[in-house]
Amino acid sequence: MASSLPSSLPLAPSLAPERVNIALGERSYPIVIGAGLLGDAATYAQLPGAATALIVSNTTVAPLYAAQLQLALQARYPRVLLLQLPDGEAHKDWAHLQLIFDALLAHGCDRKTVLFALGGGVVGDMCGFAAASYMRGVPFVQVPTTLLAQVDSSVGGKTAINHPLGKNMIGAFYQPQLVVCDLDVLATLPERELSAGLAEVIKYGPIADLAFLDWIEAALPALLARDPQALSHAVKRSCEIKAHVVGQDEREAGLRAILNFGHTFGHAIEAGMGYGQWLHGEAVGCGMVMAAELSQRLGLIDAALAARLKRLVQAAGLPVQGPRLAEDNAGRYLELMRLDKKSEAGEIKFVLIDPPGSAAVRAAPNALVRQVIDACCAQA
Amino acid sequence: MASSLPSSLPLAPSLAPERVNIALGERSYPIVIGAGLLGDAATYAQLPGAATALIVSNTTVAPLYAAQLQLALQARYPRVLLLQLPDGEAHKDWAHLQLIFDALLAHGCDRKTVLFALGGGVVGDMCGFAAASYMRGVPFVQVPTTLLAQVDSSVGGKTAINHPLGKNMIGAFYQPQLVVCDLDVLATLPERELSAGLAEVIKYGPIADLAFLDWIEAALPALLARDPQALSHAVKRSCEIKAHVVGQDEREAGLRAILNFGHTFGHAIEAGMGYGQWLHGEAVGCGMVMAAELSQRLGLIDAALAARLKRLVQAAGLPVQGPRLAEDNAGRYLELMRLDKKSEAGEIKFVLIDPPGSAAVRAAPNALVRQVIDACCAQA
Repeated sequence: MASSLPSSLPLAPSLAPERVNIALGERSYPIVIGAGLLGDAATYAQLPGAATALIVSNTTVAPLYAAQLQLALQARYPRVLLLQLPDGEAHKDWAHLQLIFDALLAHGCDRKTVLFALGGGVVGDMCGFAAASYMRGVPFVQVPTTLLAQVDSSVGGKTAINHPLGKNMIGAFYQPQLVVCDLDVLATLPERELSAGLAEVIKYGPIADLAFLDWIEAALPALLARDPQALSHAVKRSCEIKAHVVGQDEREAGLRAILNFGHTFGHAIEAGMGYGQWLHGEAVGCGMVMAAELSQRLGLIDAALAARLKRLVQAAGLPVQGPRLAEDNAGRYLELMRLDKKSEAGEIKFVLIDPPGSAAVRAAPNALVRQVIDACCAQA
Repeated sequence: MASSLPSSLPLAPSLAPERVNIALGERSYPIVIGAGLLGDAATYAQLPGAATALIVSNTTVAPLYAAQLQLALQARYPRVLLLQLPDGEAHKDWAHLQLIFDALLAHGCDRKTVLFALGGGVVGDMCGFAAASYMRGVPFVQVPTTLLAQVDSSVGGKTAINHPLGKNMIGAFYQPQLVVCDLDVLATLPERELSAGLAEVIKYGPIADLAFLDWIEAALPALLARDPQALSHAVKRSCEIKAHVVGQDEREAGLRAILNFGHTFGHAIEAGMGYGQWLHGEAVGCGMVMAAELSQRLGLIDAALAARLKRLVQAAGLPVQGPRLAEDNAGRYLELMRLDKKSEAGEIKFVLIDPPGSAAVRAAPNALVRQVIDACCAQA
């Protein structure tokens, strides 16, 4: 991690709206973080004008928040449409992406139409890819309603759908105009989703900011109790770190890959179990434990840090033991991980803690990876 | 057209390979134009290295040229794969795009894999969109085998597939690493395809370069006889003009839309007849006649220029009378044109000659557009 990242760890942050900027030249945009933002017309006042706005949401989130977003947007857009997709990672595929294009064309939406992703990571990834591709690109806004989407997936412009042979294999780097992190919506988040989001918060500690790791450990009870001040700081600090990394490497030529800590093992778990069985954050939580174990066996970190991370993941309500995926369990993990986007010429690349507070992307001996899988997974 | 465009109109251009650069900062790339380029390993020597190259072609072109391209690429890439799609605009859809992703994943292709589009505009558009989307972007090379693709569709980074409700509705702006215009391949082009390509060559005259229009008129017999020097100049000058326009407006915020001259009416013909019934170039040829008629009725050009363009389109072997699409023929054209990507809030935008040698994008009164359609289409 570059040392120029500003550190800010107030124990009692203010609840006034916070603003984090993603600096990408003409593709720069703000993340606004605070209470009561989603339904406030002022939140959207600076967006490009258009005849139509289309809200893409899902059948779980739309009944809770679509009406207030629609009302707020009507101040700016003459026509505000709503499309509800089925909920869940299992539907992050072409067939459901096509429903967005169908809606846009059926309503005669032009290339100025603004799309709003109202939901978690699945909705954000699909709506973002639809915005990237419709008429070769229309503006879009992320309105993430899960902690995971607020601290990770809605920020940085990665959009994608899954392919039966691999997660997020088809997509685009395409930046939103604005990310609206309304902390109020976290009140309705199921516990399991809250824990899944904490996985991506925890992620930033070991790879980028050990002081933030200390803070998360101390604040975990408050975070699990959904204390607004604790959540506000967790979201803001996570976005700051992500903004810093993405600002240096938008298209993941190098540095940005460190944000994939825990994801190489995690994606194998998601694909191996079938999309939607494990939440993405659950797989990442467990994947971080495995990546830390691998870092330790490679001599990059000591056993104390690996154990500390495992305790924190577990305390956040996340699984720390990988599932068995096949008779030849390690072989199956390796097979799935070879399809990871970081792989080159069949060689799997892992994000490793190196040294603590930083990360590096590199290959590891197959035999050692097998040991890690055996040590971290449920036994037959 | 900005006056800084260099003019070059030799009547007997050299046949040494020519080079036109598309200047787009870090996304810049060359177009090489000449004989014997496709099968020459030296053509590809500067491309990024990778473990795998995938040639995407179709069942018409692959038997003619895939073997020599494969051989040339084997000098640079350890593994060279070939995928053949069915030929024709009717197959420029998601189902066939998916075949490219399936092949890439089935062969474990990583994010350094280089895609080669060997074919006409359909192959180039599909392969380009696949390259833009696979793992959020891999490098690709255009090896256009039709005149139309060499002078227009392979240059400038527009990629797309069709949607049942509109042409090129889903795609990306994504630039290739290199465009290889091998003039030898034009020898095997069916006559109908040659004429279709000439439509896009002719296009550049009225909107950007009246001296080029003069040259095309004089050189038309040589072009139809596939004289290598005439074809070389037609390709080079077309690419120069397109490079100049794209270099100023990559994502079609304004100026680039002039390259859509004839395409607003043309896309309506293609969609209304069913994709593949009229070749894209045929629809554009007829569409230019209609757009010139509209320009004249708006008082932007005189009748002589409109008549001259119509004669040239006809002499190039292209249709100059629009097909009837419905009982309410003008109504159906208008309905289809409202779905055009240049439309805003339901208002159709036309590319008009204004003044001769330049173009402007603007709306026109519906009643006048109806008159143009009635005047230019076959009667019931």
